This record gives sequence, structure tokens and C-alpha cells, in this order.
Amino acid sequence: MRYLITGCAGFIGSNLADRLLAAGHEVVGYDNFSTGREQFLASAQAAASFQLVRGDVLDTAALAAAMRGAECVFHLAANADVRSGTAHPRKDLEQNTLGTHSVLEAMRHAGVGKIVFSSTGSVYGEAAVIPTPEDAPFPVQTSLYGASKLAGEGLIAAYCAGFGLQAWIFRFVSILGERYTHGHVFDFYRQLHADPTRLRVLGNGLQRKSYLYVQDCIEAMLLALARAGEQVNIFNLGHDTYCEVNDSIAWICAALGVAPQIEYGGGDRGWVGDNPRILLDISRIRKLGWQPALSIQEGINKTLGYLRTHGWVLDTYR
Amino acid sequence: MRYLITGCAGFIGSNLADRLLAAGHEVVGYDNFSTGREQFLASAQAAASFQLVRGDVLDTAALAAAMRGAECVFHLAANADVRSGTAHPRKDLEQNTLGTHSVLEAMRHAGVGKIVFSSTGSVYGEAAVIPTPEDAPFPVQTSLYGASKLAGEGLIAAYCAGFGLQAWIFRFVSILGERYTHGHVFDFYRQLHADPTRLRVLGNGLQRKSYLYVQDCIEAMLLALARAGEQVNIFNLGHDTYCEVNDSIAWICAALGVAPQIEYGGGDRGWVGDNPRILLDISRIRKLGWQPALSIQEGINKTLGYLRTHGWVLDTYR
Repeated sequence: MRYLITGCAGFIGSNLADRLLAAGHEVVGYDNFSTGREQFLASAQAAASFQLVRGDVLDTAALAAAMRGAECVFHLAANADVRSGTAHPRKDLEQNTLGTHSVLEAMRHAGVGKIVFSSTGSVYGEAAVIPTPEDAPFPVQTSLYGASKLAGEGLIAAYCAGFGLQAWIFRFVSILGERYTHGHVFDFYRQLHADPTRLRVLGNGLQRKSYLYVQDCIEAMLLALARAGEQVNIFNLGHDTYCEVNDSIAWICAALGVAPQIEYGGGDRGWVGDNPRILLDISRIRKLGWQPALSIQEGINKTLGYLRTHGWVLDTYR
Repeated sequence: MRYLITGCAGFIGSNLADRLLAAGHEVVGYDNFSTGREQFLASAQAAASFQLVRGDVLDTAALAAAMRGAECVFHLAANADVRSGTAHPRKDLEQNTLGTHSVLEAMRHAGVGKIVFSSTGSVYGEAAVIPTPEDAPFPVQTSLYGASKLAGEGLIAAYCAGFGLQAWIFRFVSILGERYTHGHVFDFYRQLHADPTRLRVLGNGLQRKSYLYVQDCIEAMLLALARAGEQVNIFNLGHDTYCEVNDSIAWICAALGVAPQIEYGGGDRGWVGDNPRILLDISRIRKLGWQPALSIQEGINKTLGYLRTHGWVLDTYR
């Protein structure tokens, strides 16, 4: 089968490309390399069934040309800088909402009927129900990132109703693993790499969030794509459990053999729009037969192992 | 107090302007006259405390200049052509989602802290719970119009969290009354005006929807603005009851004294994305002390009375 992946040179996109190629599929990778990197595509580029197209998702015509003949689009390209939405309040709108609209228009033009979309647990805002199910009470948005992904979900569902597309929408927790380039494990590792005696932590360390290993995430998406046949299929993707930031710090310090002085920034949130408690109800995707293979701690250890052996990532992503 | 109204030359905007001016407030009307009309502002223009600015909501700088010194923005400008979203799939996105983002940016630049937003019951898609409360299960969008308003709501809430704005979001059913320019009463009146012997009806006539008279709608918004003090205040606005399209036809024919042959288009929906059953739970706004003064039938009769005495509206809006 032939797939197009937007954001193919990114963390999840490049891992997905490797996985689809290994399964014998053809993959067209589409990326503008604003945050993606050639290095992440080294293994994909070695496959004859991989084709790379440099382009921006907002370039609808180029995107439509690239996806012609594909059966399904994995739309992963996005601004994933969740924390600094208020510093550039048009970025999430352009790259996530308008980007998704451009992908949908390209699909109409190219005659591609299936879309897989990486949404986020952030669309639940500060959820009233935890663990949060997919049909939780209509949420109020708390971040520009969440709002931009909610808008993307809405556009996709409306295109399904209006133009007969079929969609698989996944609301992710934070994803961990090889080629991970941002988030708290990255921040903590970089700080401790520079100075093992001191660690600055946003908030009070008591935030509790769920995390998922990237291969578990990909496994879940492919399983749902094969087994869920509604017109609009929506799934939470996360772990059954969550960990406290302080647990995560203890695991990271143990893995690195360091014992830093910890300085908390204070407050119960890491940044404006941060949700101090994220745990998604994953019973819907579990009913399809999926479960995470790795614990959160194992996912963190995989991430640390990758960062220790890929020093260039620390220099590239700041 | 000084207010800015976007879409001030439209149906609801012009009625709101008259109401605020009558209460002694200053009003800046902002409109690009794409669907708004000068005639609707004849009474407002007679007031010294009214100022009209011609401009597009997407012109953020002009809008910011117009709203400087205002305490609150009523953001009513929108593409309200709910039916033909799939004919121009970028229009709702631009005029509703990007338009709302522009209004929010203009508010940041101009230092205006309060926004009232006309959203829609269409954001509930095909609601699982009827009557539908504000915290209904997380809905799946079924129209580009609903998706564009949902995206606007999300942006507004995220700006409240990120920049300290305060918002009143109203999810309207269809509004009726003086200066009404589109919708089923308009369509039926125009058809019967041209040929009283024949009426073509979209769908099977069994769609059941709620409607609200424009003065009741305005009363509810002003009451909520005065009495609801959360950072993000969300209210359904509609009637306790709904009527079947066939009831509405009977009332209209009785009021006009005609007995046409009725031709149903068939199917349970009027158009792609139409929701055949709309009834919002209005207990939240009723708890503030509001209730509709007019029944749906009385609202329809007011609308017919207006259309009969304002023939130019029939020629202008097609």
C-alpha cells in the first residue's frame, strides 16, 4: 500500500516511515524541514520504496501532487511547541489549523480518501473527568495549541461529512523514545548533561501526566487503521498510568547516576496553558486488542539511551 | 459604556446596535457590507452616539483602531450561509475562524478585555443528548460552518487563558425577527410571494428545530453579560420547545392565507451537514432569570410581518 506522511522527518513521522517500509509499503515523506531532520530519515532513505518530497503543508498544490496515488495520508506535520503559544499567537493557527485544512483540500484534489491525524489530549483542556474518555463533557480550551488541534479535528470531521473522507483521529499524551526532540525528559537531560549538580524544574514537581513510547503509539495507530471502520474514528492514545514529575526526575537521575540539587520554579503549572494532570481513558483503543508494551519508566530509559548516543540532537534542538 | 459590534449592519448586529443606543450607550459599528445593509442602520445612524466604520474583520489594524476605547466587543460578523459550506470550503474557515482570530488580536493590540461571540448550536453536530446541554459529550462536527464556529470558540477560550480576556459565548439556534435575511421562513415566504400555489421543501418536512426571536436573543446576551462573571461563560440560546417544519409551513400558510401544493425534496435532511433535530437545553441561561417572551409561532409571525412590509429585502438577499 502507498502512504504519504506529512512531518515525515520529525520524531513520530520518521519512526512511522521506518515501520511502514519494514512492512513492505511504499512511503512518500513530505516535510519542510523546519523542525524535521535529514538524519532521522537515514534508514528510510536507504529503502527503494521511499520517496522524499520537500515542501510545506500550506502549499496545497505541491502536497496534492505528492500524495497522488496514495491510499492514506498520515498528517503529523504540526507546530508541537506547546509551551510558547502566547509568544507567537498565530503560529499554532497557521501550522496546525490552516495546515490541516490544506491537507484536506489536497486530499480532495488528489482523490485520497483516508486521513490519520495526530491530535492531542490537550483538546480536553482541564478535564472534569479523569481518566478522560473520548466523549468527555464538551471541553473549554486552555491553550492555543489545544485550540488549533481541536480546530483541525473539527475540519477533518466536517470534511468526512461533506466530502465522504474517512478519518482516524488520535489524541496523544506526550510521546517518548528514539528521535525525541522536545519535552521534559529532553530538558532535564540537557541540563544534567551540562551540569549534573543542578536541575531547574518548571512548576512544583507535582504535575502528573501520562506518557507513551513511540513504537507503542505507532502500533496503536496501525491497529486502529486496520480494525476501526467508522467514518470518523477517535481514539485516546496514552498509558494506563501516569507519573509525577518528581518520579520522572528520580528515574532520570538514577539512570544517569547523578544527584543534583533541584530548584522548583513554583506554582502548580509549568507554563501558561499547562495542564497539571493528564490521564486519558484508553479503554476504547484497548478494546481493539492493543496495549502498551513498555512502561512509562521504560519509555523514559529508551529516550535517555537515545539522547546519550545522539549528542547532535542536543545541539540541534534548543 | 462604549461597545464595538462587528457585523453591525447585519440582522442581529443592527438590532443590537439599536438596543444599546436606546439604553444610552456609545456604539461603534464595524461592517464590510458584504451581506450587511445600510438600510438596517438607518435608525442607528440617527443617533449621535453611533459611529460607523467600514472595514473587514480580517483587517486587524483597522479593527484595532476602531475598537480603541471600547469596553467590550460583540463579535457577530460571520459567514452565516450554513447550507453551502461544501461549495466553497475555505469561506467558513476564513470568515469565521480567521475572522475571530483577527478580532482577538485586535483586542490585544487595542487593550479591549471583553468579547461576546455568536456561536451556534451546530457545534454539537448530531447531538447524542437532546435537549443538548452546554457540557454535552464532546461532539463530532458535521458541517464546515459548525467546525469554523467551534474553532472560534476554542481560540477565544485559549486567548482568555493566555491573555486574560473575558468571554461570553452564545450557541444560538436559528434566530427570527425584523431584518431576518435567510433561513427557511425567508425561503418559504419568497416562494409563496412569487407563486402562492406551490411550495418546495428541502427534506421530508419532519425536521424538528428550535427558533428564537431576535429581541429575546439580545435580551439574553445583555443579561448574561451583566450577570455571568466567569472568565469563559458559555450559554445555549434557544427556545424551550421546537417545531416541525410542517408546523412552520402550516403557520406561514395560515398567516399568508394561502394553500399551496407542497413538494418535498425527500430525505430526512435539508442539506449536507443539516441536523434534522435541534433542541438546546437552555436551563443555564434561564437560571440567570431570562425567558423567551415570544413563542416560536409569534417569532415566525413577526418575521413574516417584516418581510411583507420590506419588499426590498426579498430582492437583495437571494
